Amino acid sequence: MHDNVKRAVTTYPINDLLASRWSPRAFADRAIPTDVLGSLFEAARWAPSSRNLQPWHFVIGERHRDPDGFARILSTLVGANKSWGKNASVLLIAVTEPEPENVKGGNTYAYYDVGQAMAHFSIQAMSCGLYIHQMGGFRRDKARELLEIPDQYEPVVSAAIGYLADPSILSDTMRERELAPRSRHPLSEQVYSAKWGQSHPDYV
Amino acid sequence: MHDNVKRAVTTYPINDLLASRWSPRAFADRAIPTDVLGSLFEAARWAPSSRNLQPWHFVIGERHRDPDGFARILSTLVGANKSWGKNASVLLIAVTEPEPENVKGGNTYAYYDVGQAMAHFSIQAMSCGLYIHQMGGFRRDKARELLEIPDQYEPVVSAAIGYLADPSILSDTMRERELAPRSRHPLSEQVYSAKWGQSHPDYV
Repeated sequence: MHDNVKRAVTTYPINDLLASRWSPRAFADRAIPTDVLGSLFEAARWAPSSRNLQPWHFVIGERHRDPDGFARILSTLVGANKSWGKNASVLLIAVTEPEPENVKGGNTYAYYDVGQAMAHFSIQAMSCGLYIHQMGGFRRDKARELLEIPDQYEPVVSAAIGYLADPSILSDTMRERELAPRSRHPLSEQVYSAKWGQSHPDYV
Repeated sequence: MHDNVKRAVTTYPINDLLASRWSPRAFADRAIPTDVLGSLFEAARWAPSSRNLQPWHFVIGERHRDPDGFARILSTLVGANKSWGKNASVLLIAVTEPEPENVKGGNTYAYYDVGQAMAHFSIQAMSCGLYIHQMGGFRRDKARELLEIPDQYEPVVSAAIGYLADPSILSDTMRERELAPRSRHPLSEQVYSAKWGQSHPDYV
């Protein structure tokens, strides 16, 4: 099974939810039960945030329960995202509030904290047998207009959520990406000991 | 035990690693084994990122193995963070690269993706019996100088990592915060169906 090439290759072991997480394009034609999807949003809700401001909001479209809402979000995706995104069970636009009224100078962590919330969301998805694929490729202006997002909020990221399907449903190009191994920079370039550029002897 | 008031109160169940995660101030005087800390960095390393740019870097100070490196990061913390941060086993500064040379117009997800990586890091910490406490309260200029962070990189967040200790080691003010229940906005204010402001009937 192609999941083998997707599993993280690590020197130090990591939790299975994290090791087996990846961002697929082949999603099954299957509705997500309301309570299961609810668990994903609870996970995002309980993420940490600077000053507990919780800057995240999510606008969702459910393909099987609300085809019109789903089509609206689908229409904001660009390029290949639209071609495989149509198979997701749920599409989502995450939104942040960079300058809340009561926060002088704005919220420095407005984007960072939405990243945290989406990470919690995606790990809960793994825990429920679901996968998510985050996408930067969507039209922010169109999302704002179609989803009626007020001026003081900013669309951050879009995401497809669903159950895994066989890669054979994809186009040749997308199937190739779907089956490619994942890769990351080595720890030696990510972890420094006590000062910049000084690799840690145990993290190489 | 005070952990009871810290556990997330949810309508829909979430994975135990996510439900029991919180940000303590009382850390035990105990070194983190190198391989355990390595698992936390592997988890961050395998987080998703826009165009797989992996914009995150971590500069760490280990209290028991490198007291000088630890003291250097501790000195960048401000206010109360310094008073309880000194008890952490490891202090960390996460750094991002907002404008990589080969990315025209900069990386829109430079902060968002560091948020994701730190979330993966903190969930792996929970999986290893460790807790992390992220802090916006640190001097970025001082961190840049002391840790020799080059101009094209930006310090994003600091974090304390360690094993939980009894809250009795804290000052009265900090102990009160340590024992306070956690709170979040309701799902009705975070999840909208198909358009902004339209709460989902099942997520209230």
